[in-house]
Amino acid sequence: MENDIFLLKHISLFENLNDDEITRIRNICTPVSFSKDEIIMQEGDVGDTMYIIIEGTVEVAKTLVLPGVDLADKEQVGNKVFSRLHAQHNPVFGEISILESSARTATIKALTDCIFYEIKKDDFLRLAEQNYELGYKVLFNIARTACTRLRKANEDVVKLTTVLSLVLKET
Amino acid sequence: MENDIFLLKHISLFENLNDDEITRIRNICTPVSFSKDEIIMQEGDVGDTMYIIIEGTVEVAKTLVLPGVDLADKEQVGNKVFSRLHAQHNPVFGEISILESSARTATIKALTDCIFYEIKKDDFLRLAEQNYELGYKVLFNIARTACTRLRKANEDVVKLTTVLSLVLKET
Repeated sequence: MENDIFLLKHISLFENLNDDEITRIRNICTPVSFSKDEIIMQEGDVGDTMYIIIEGTVEVAKTLVLPGVDLADKEQVGNKVFSRLHAQHNPVFGEISILESSARTATIKALTDCIFYEIKKDDFLRLAEQNYELGYKVLFNIARTACTRLRKANEDVVKLTTVLSLVLKET
Repeated sequence: MENDIFLLKHISLFENLNDDEITRIRNICTPVSFSKDEIIMQEGDVGDTMYIIIEGTVEVAKTLVLPGVDLADKEQVGNKVFSRLHAQHNPVFGEISILESSARTATIKALTDCIFYEIKKDDFLRLAEQNYELGYKVLFNIARTACTRLRKANEDVVKLTTVLSLVLKET
Protein backbone atom coordinates (compact mmCIF):
# COMPACT_ATOMS: atom_id res chain seq x y z
CA MET A 1 0.00 0.00 0.00
CA GLU A 2 2.83 2.41 0.84
CA ASN A 3 4.39 1.67 -2.55
CA ASP A 4 1.07 2.44 -4.20
CA ILE A 5 0.82 5.80 -2.47
CA PHE A 6 4.35 6.65 -3.63
CA LEU A 7 3.49 5.56 -7.18
CA LEU A 8 0.20 7.49 -7.39
CA LYS A 9 1.76 10.65 -5.93
CA HIS A 10 4.14 10.84 -8.88
CA ILE A 11 1.43 10.74 -11.54
CA SER A 12 0.77 14.22 -12.91
CA LEU A 13 -3.00 13.60 -12.84
CA PHE A 14 -2.77 13.40 -9.03
CA GLU A 15 -0.33 16.27 -8.59
CA ASN A 16 -0.98 18.38 -5.47
CA LEU A 17 -3.10 15.70 -3.77
CA ASN A 18 -2.23 15.11 -0.12
CA ASP A 19 -1.65 11.64 1.37
CA ASP A 20 -5.23 11.29 2.53
CA GLU A 21 -6.57 12.17 -0.94
CA ILE A 22 -4.08 9.80 -2.62
CA THR A 23 -5.29 7.01 -0.31
CA ARG A 24 -8.88 7.70 -1.38
CA ILE A 25 -7.80 7.48 -5.03
CA ARG A 26 -5.98 4.20 -4.27
CA ASN A 27 -9.21 2.82 -2.83
CA ILE A 28 -11.01 3.21 -6.18
CA CYS A 29 -8.13 1.63 -8.18
CA THR A 30 -8.70 -1.99 -9.22
CA PRO A 31 -5.68 -4.00 -10.40
CA VAL A 32 -6.41 -5.64 -13.78
CA SER A 33 -4.14 -7.74 -15.97
CA PHE A 34 -3.96 -8.22 -19.74
CA SER A 35 -1.95 -10.82 -21.67
CA LYS A 36 0.53 -10.03 -24.45
CA ASP A 37 -1.31 -9.12 -27.70
CA GLU A 38 -4.63 -8.49 -25.95
CA ILE A 39 -6.54 -5.37 -27.08
CA ILE A 40 -7.27 -3.18 -24.06
CA MET A 41 -9.40 -0.65 -25.88
CA GLN A 42 -10.47 -0.14 -29.48
CA GLU A 43 -10.51 3.28 -31.15
CA GLY A 44 -14.11 4.48 -31.55
CA ASP A 45 -15.58 2.25 -28.82
CA VAL A 46 -17.25 4.11 -25.97
CA GLY A 47 -15.47 3.66 -22.66
CA ASP A 48 -15.76 4.86 -19.08
CA THR A 49 -12.51 3.67 -17.52
CA MET A 50 -9.00 5.04 -17.29
CA TYR A 51 -5.85 3.01 -16.73
CA ILE A 52 -2.50 3.52 -15.01
CA ILE A 53 0.27 1.25 -16.32
CA ILE A 54 1.91 -0.60 -13.41
CA GLU A 55 3.78 -3.30 -15.33
CA GLY A 56 4.41 -3.89 -19.04
CA THR A 57 4.35 -2.02 -22.34
CA VAL A 58 1.43 -1.10 -24.60
CA GLU A 59 1.17 0.06 -28.19
CA VAL A 60 -1.01 3.07 -29.00
CA ALA A 61 -2.39 3.10 -32.57
CA LYS A 62 -4.29 6.11 -33.84
CA THR A 63 -5.97 6.30 -37.23
CA LEU A 64 -4.76 9.20 -39.35
CA VAL A 65 -6.94 8.61 -42.40
CA LEU A 66 -10.71 8.15 -42.59
CA PRO A 67 -11.80 4.52 -42.92
CA GLY A 68 -12.83 3.36 -46.38
CA VAL A 69 -10.41 5.63 -48.21
CA ASP A 70 -8.40 3.58 -50.70
CA LEU A 71 -4.80 4.70 -50.57
CA ALA A 72 -1.82 3.33 -52.48
CA ASP A 73 -0.56 1.54 -49.38
CA LYS A 74 -2.51 -1.71 -49.48
CA GLU A 75 -1.64 -2.64 -45.91
CA GLN A 76 -3.02 0.66 -44.64
CA VAL A 77 -0.14 0.72 -42.14
CA GLY A 78 0.67 4.21 -43.34
CA ASN A 79 -2.81 5.26 -42.22
CA LYS A 80 -2.01 4.89 -38.54
CA VAL A 81 0.44 6.48 -36.18
CA PHE A 82 1.97 4.23 -33.52
CA SER A 83 3.60 4.96 -30.20
CA ARG A 84 4.46 3.00 -27.06
CA LEU A 85 3.88 3.51 -23.37
CA HIS A 86 6.09 1.77 -20.79
CA ALA A 87 5.35 1.17 -17.12
CA GLN A 88 8.51 3.01 -16.03
CA HIS A 89 6.84 6.35 -15.35
CA ASN A 90 3.35 4.88 -14.81
CA PRO A 91 1.66 6.64 -17.72
CA VAL A 92 -2.10 7.05 -17.76
CA PHE A 93 -4.50 6.52 -20.65
CA GLY A 94 -8.24 6.99 -21.09
CA GLU A 95 -8.38 9.73 -18.43
CA ILE A 96 -10.92 11.79 -20.38
CA SER A 97 -13.37 8.91 -19.82
CA ILE A 98 -13.58 9.51 -16.09
CA LEU A 99 -15.34 12.81 -16.87
CA GLU A 100 -17.78 11.50 -19.43
CA SER A 101 -18.21 8.24 -21.32
CA SER A 102 -16.65 8.96 -24.70
CA ALA A 103 -15.28 7.30 -27.82
CA ARG A 104 -11.72 6.04 -27.39
CA THR A 105 -9.32 8.09 -29.52
CA ALA A 106 -6.82 5.26 -30.03
CA THR A 107 -6.51 1.48 -29.97
CA ILE A 108 -4.32 0.20 -27.14
CA LYS A 109 -2.73 -3.26 -27.36
CA ALA A 110 -0.60 -5.06 -24.77
CA LEU A 111 2.89 -5.69 -26.19
CA THR A 112 3.83 -7.68 -23.07
CA ASP A 113 1.82 -9.15 -20.21
CA CYS A 114 0.58 -6.05 -18.38
CA ILE A 115 -0.82 -4.98 -15.04
CA PHE A 116 -2.83 -1.75 -14.78
CA TYR A 117 -4.80 0.08 -12.16
CA GLU A 118 -8.28 0.72 -13.51
CA ILE A 119 -10.42 3.66 -12.34
CA LYS A 120 -14.10 3.72 -13.33
CA LYS A 121 -15.90 6.99 -14.10
CA ASP A 122 -18.74 6.36 -11.65
CA ASP A 123 -16.30 5.57 -8.81
CA PHE A 124 -14.26 8.70 -9.51
CA LEU A 125 -17.31 10.98 -9.77
CA ARG A 126 -18.78 9.57 -6.53
CA LEU A 127 -15.45 10.14 -4.75
CA ALA A 128 -15.09 13.67 -6.19
CA GLU A 129 -18.61 14.65 -5.16
CA GLN A 130 -17.89 13.51 -1.61
CA ASN A 131 -14.52 15.31 -1.60
CA TYR A 132 -14.80 18.43 -3.73
CA GLU A 133 -11.26 19.58 -2.96
CA LEU A 134 -9.89 16.27 -4.28
CA GLY A 135 -12.27 16.46 -7.27
CA TYR A 136 -11.23 20.03 -8.00
CA LYS A 137 -7.51 19.18 -7.98
CA VAL A 138 -7.90 16.14 -10.25
CA LEU A 139 -10.22 18.00 -12.67
CA PHE A 140 -7.73 20.86 -12.81
CA ASN A 141 -5.04 18.40 -13.94
CA ILE A 142 -7.37 16.69 -16.44
CA ALA A 143 -8.49 20.05 -17.86
CA ARG A 144 -4.87 21.16 -18.26
CA THR A 145 -3.97 17.89 -20.01
CA ALA A 146 -6.96 18.31 -22.35
CA CYS A 147 -5.93 21.93 -23.08
CA THR A 148 -2.33 20.91 -23.86
CA ARG A 149 -3.61 18.26 -26.27
CA LEU A 150 -6.05 20.77 -27.78
CA ARG A 151 -3.21 23.24 -28.46
CA LYS A 152 -1.19 20.44 -30.10
CA ALA A 153 -4.18 19.34 -32.23
CA ASN A 154 -4.85 22.95 -33.29
CA GLU A 155 -1.20 23.33 -34.31
CA ASP A 156 -1.46 20.12 -36.32
CA VAL A 157 -4.56 21.46 -38.11
CA VAL A 158 -2.67 24.66 -39.08
CA LYS A 159 0.37 22.67 -40.28
CA LEU A 160 -1.76 20.27 -42.32
CA THR A 161 -3.78 23.12 -43.87
CA THR A 162 -0.52 24.86 -44.78
CA VAL A 163 0.92 21.76 -46.45
CA LEU A 164 -2.36 21.10 -48.25
CA SER A 165 -2.51 24.72 -49.48
CA LEU A 166 1.06 24.49 -50.79
CA VAL A 167 0.42 21.15 -52.51
CA LEU A 168 -2.78 22.45 -54.11
CA LYS A 169 -0.95 25.59 -55.27
CA GLU A 170 1.67 23.41 -57.04
CA THR A 171 -0.87 21.24 -58.86
CA MET B 1 -28.37 42.05 -10.00
CA GLU B 2 -31.32 39.66 -10.34
CA ASN B 3 -31.03 39.94 -14.13
CA ASP B 4 -27.34 39.08 -13.87
CA ILE B 5 -28.07 35.96 -11.85
CA PHE B 6 -30.62 34.86 -14.46
CA LEU B 7 -28.11 35.57 -17.25
CA LEU B 8 -25.19 33.72 -15.63
CA LYS B 9 -27.35 30.70 -14.71
CA HIS B 10 -28.03 30.10 -18.40
CA ILE B 11 -24.37 29.96 -19.42
CA SER B 12 -23.22 26.36 -19.87
CA LEU B 13 -19.95 27.11 -18.06
CA PHE B 14 -21.99 27.76 -14.89
CA GLU B 15 -24.42 24.89 -15.35
CA ASN B 16 -25.41 23.18 -12.08
CA LEU B 17 -24.30 26.11 -9.90
CA ASN B 18 -26.81 27.11 -7.23
CA ASP B 19 -27.92 30.72 -6.62
CA ASP B 20 -25.33 31.31 -3.92
CA GLU B 21 -22.52 30.07 -6.19
CA ILE B 22 -23.83 32.14 -9.13
CA THR B 23 -23.79 35.22 -6.88
CA ARG B 24 -20.16 34.53 -5.99
CA ILE B 25 -19.33 34.28 -9.71
CA ARG B 26 -21.19 37.56 -10.31
CA ASN B 27 -19.00 39.20 -7.67
CA ILE B 28 -15.82 38.47 -9.67
CA CYS B 29 -17.34 39.69 -12.99
CA THR B 30 -16.22 43.19 -14.05
CA PRO B 31 -18.24 44.95 -16.78
CA VAL B 32 -15.92 46.19 -19.56
CA SER B 33 -16.79 47.94 -22.82
CA PHE B 34 -15.12 47.95 -26.23
CA SER B 35 -15.88 50.22 -29.18
CA LYS B 36 -16.73 49.05 -32.69
CA ASP B 37 -13.59 47.80 -34.51
CA GLU B 38 -11.53 47.48 -31.32
CA ILE B 39 -9.42 44.32 -31.01
CA ILE B 40 -10.30 42.53 -27.78
CA MET B 41 -7.63 39.87 -28.03
CA GLN B 42 -4.98 38.95 -30.57
CA GLU B 43 -4.25 35.37 -31.59
CA GLY B 44 -0.93 34.25 -30.06
CA ASP B 45 -0.89 36.82 -27.25
CA VAL B 46 -0.85 35.38 -23.75
CA GLY B 47 -3.99 36.17 -21.77
CA ASP B 48 -5.49 35.42 -18.39
CA THR B 49 -9.06 36.70 -18.74
CA MET B 50 -12.30 35.25 -20.06
CA TYR B 51 -15.26 37.24 -21.35
CA ILE B 52 -19.03 36.82 -21.40
CA ILE B 53 -20.75 38.84 -24.15
CA ILE B 54 -23.53 40.97 -22.63
CA GLU B 55 -24.17 43.35 -25.53
CA GLY B 56 -22.90 43.47 -29.11
CA THR B 57 -21.34 41.23 -31.73
CA VAL B 58 -17.72 40.13 -32.17
CA GLU B 59 -15.80 38.55 -35.02
CA VAL B 60 -13.59 35.54 -34.31
CA ALA B 61 -10.67 35.11 -36.75
CA LYS B 62 -8.48 32.04 -36.56
CA THR B 63 -5.38 31.49 -38.69
CA LEU B 64 -5.51 28.33 -40.78
CA VAL B 65 -2.11 28.60 -42.46
CA LEU B 66 1.32 29.13 -40.89
CA PRO B 67 2.53 32.74 -41.11
CA GLY B 68 5.11 33.51 -43.78
CA VAL B 69 3.78 30.95 -46.24
CA ASP B 70 3.27 32.61 -49.61
CA LEU B 71 0.00 31.40 -51.06
CA ALA B 72 -1.65 32.39 -54.33
CA ASP B 73 -4.20 34.50 -52.47
CA LYS B 74 -2.38 37.81 -52.10
CA GLU B 75 -4.80 39.12 -49.52
CA GLN B 76 -4.25 36.08 -47.33
CA VAL B 77 -7.96 36.25 -46.47
CA GLY B 78 -8.23 32.60 -47.45
CA ASN B 79 -5.73 31.82 -44.69
CA LYS B 80 -8.16 32.60 -41.91
CA VAL B 81 -11.50 31.24 -40.84
CA PHE B 82 -14.05 33.73 -39.53
CA SER B 83 -17.10 33.36 -37.35
CA ARG B 84 -19.30 35.66 -35.27
CA LEU B 85 -20.59 35.62 -31.72
CA HIS B 86 -23.72 37.59 -30.77
CA ALA B 87 -24.82 38.66 -27.30
CA GLN B 88 -28.16 36.87 -27.66
CA HIS B 89 -27.13 33.69 -25.85
CA ASN B 90 -24.30 35.33 -23.87
CA PRO B 91 -21.47 33.29 -25.37
CA VAL B 92 -18.17 33.00 -23.55
CA PHE B 93 -14.65 33.24 -24.97
CA GLY B 94 -11.17 32.84 -23.49
CA GLU B 95 -12.43 30.45 -20.79
CA ILE B 96 -9.32 28.24 -21.01
CA SER B 97 -7.36 31.25 -19.69
CA ILE B 98 -8.99 31.10 -16.29
CA LEU B 99 -7.17 27.79 -15.72
CA GLU B 100 -3.76 28.86 -16.94
CA SER B 101 -2.37 31.87 -18.76
CA SER B 102 -2.15 30.70 -22.35
CA ALA B 103 -1.80 31.93 -25.92
CA ARG B 104 -5.08 33.13 -27.41
CA THR B 105 -6.22 30.77 -30.16
CA ALA B 106 -8.09 33.44 -32.15
CA THR B 107 -8.26 37.18 -32.72
CA ILE B 108 -11.50 38.71 -31.45
CA LYS B 109 -12.69 42.07 -32.83
CA ALA B 110 -15.75 44.10 -31.83
CA LEU B 111 -18.08 44.46 -34.83
CA THR B 112 -20.35 46.78 -32.80
CA ASP B 113 -19.93 48.64 -29.53
CA CYS B 114 -19.82 45.83 -26.96
CA ILE B 115 -20.22 45.21 -23.26
CA PHE B 116 -18.69 42.12 -21.67
CA TYR B 117 -18.27 40.68 -18.23
CA GLU B 118 -14.62 39.98 -17.65
CA ILE B 119 -13.38 37.27 -15.26
CA LYS B 120 -9.69 37.18 -14.35
CA LYS B 121 -7.85 33.91 -13.75
CA ASP B 122 -6.52 34.92 -10.32
CA ASP B 123 -9.99 35.97 -9.13
CA PHE B 124 -11.53 32.74 -10.34
CA LEU B 125 -8.81 30.53 -8.82
CA ARG B 126 -9.06 32.37 -5.48
CA LEU B 127 -12.84 31.91 -5.46
CA ALA B 128 -12.57 28.23 -6.47
CA GLU B 129 -10.01 27.49 -3.75
CA GLN B 130 -12.31 29.03 -1.17
CA ASN B 131 -15.33 27.13 -2.57
CA TYR B 132 -14.16 23.78 -3.90
CA GLU B 133 -17.67 22.63 -4.79
CA LEU B 134 -18.13 25.70 -7.00
CA GLY B 135 -14.61 25.24 -8.42
CA TYR B 136 -15.27 21.56 -9.14
CA LYS B 137 -18.51 22.31 -11.01
CA VAL B 138 -16.98 25.06 -13.17
CA LEU B 139 -13.85 22.99 -13.92
CA PHE B 140 -16.04 20.07 -14.90
CA ASN B 141 -17.78 22.29 -17.46
CA ILE B 142 -14.48 23.76 -18.73
CA ALA B 143 -12.92 20.29 -19.00
CA ARG B 144 -15.93 19.02 -20.96
CA THR B 145 -15.77 22.02 -23.31
CA ALA B 146 -12.04 21.42 -23.85
CA CYS B 147 -12.70 17.71 -24.54
CA THR B 148 -15.44 18.51 -27.06
CA ARG B 149 -13.08 20.89 -28.87
CA LEU B 150 -10.30 18.29 -28.71
CA ARG B 151 -12.53 15.68 -30.35
CA LYS B 152 -13.43 18.19 -33.10
CA ALA B 153 -9.76 19.12 -33.65
CA ASN B 154 -8.77 15.43 -33.80
CA GLU B 155 -11.49 14.81 -36.38
CA ASP B 156 -10.19 17.76 -38.41
CA VAL B 157 -6.67 16.30 -38.31
CA VAL B 158 -7.95 12.96 -39.66
CA LYS B 159 -9.99 14.68 -42.41
CA LEU B 160 -7.06 16.87 -43.47
CA THR B 161 -4.64 13.94 -43.49
CA THR B 162 -7.12 12.00 -45.62
CA VAL B 163 -7.48 14.82 -48.16
CA LEU B 164 -3.71 15.34 -48.22
CA SER B 165 -3.11 11.61 -48.78
CA LEU B 166 -5.61 11.58 -51.65
CA VAL B 167 -4.11 14.70 -53.25
CA LEU B 168 -0.58 13.30 -52.96
CA LYS B 169 -1.73 9.99 -54.44
CA GLU B 170 -3.12 11.84 -57.49
CA THR B 171 0.05 13.85 -58.14
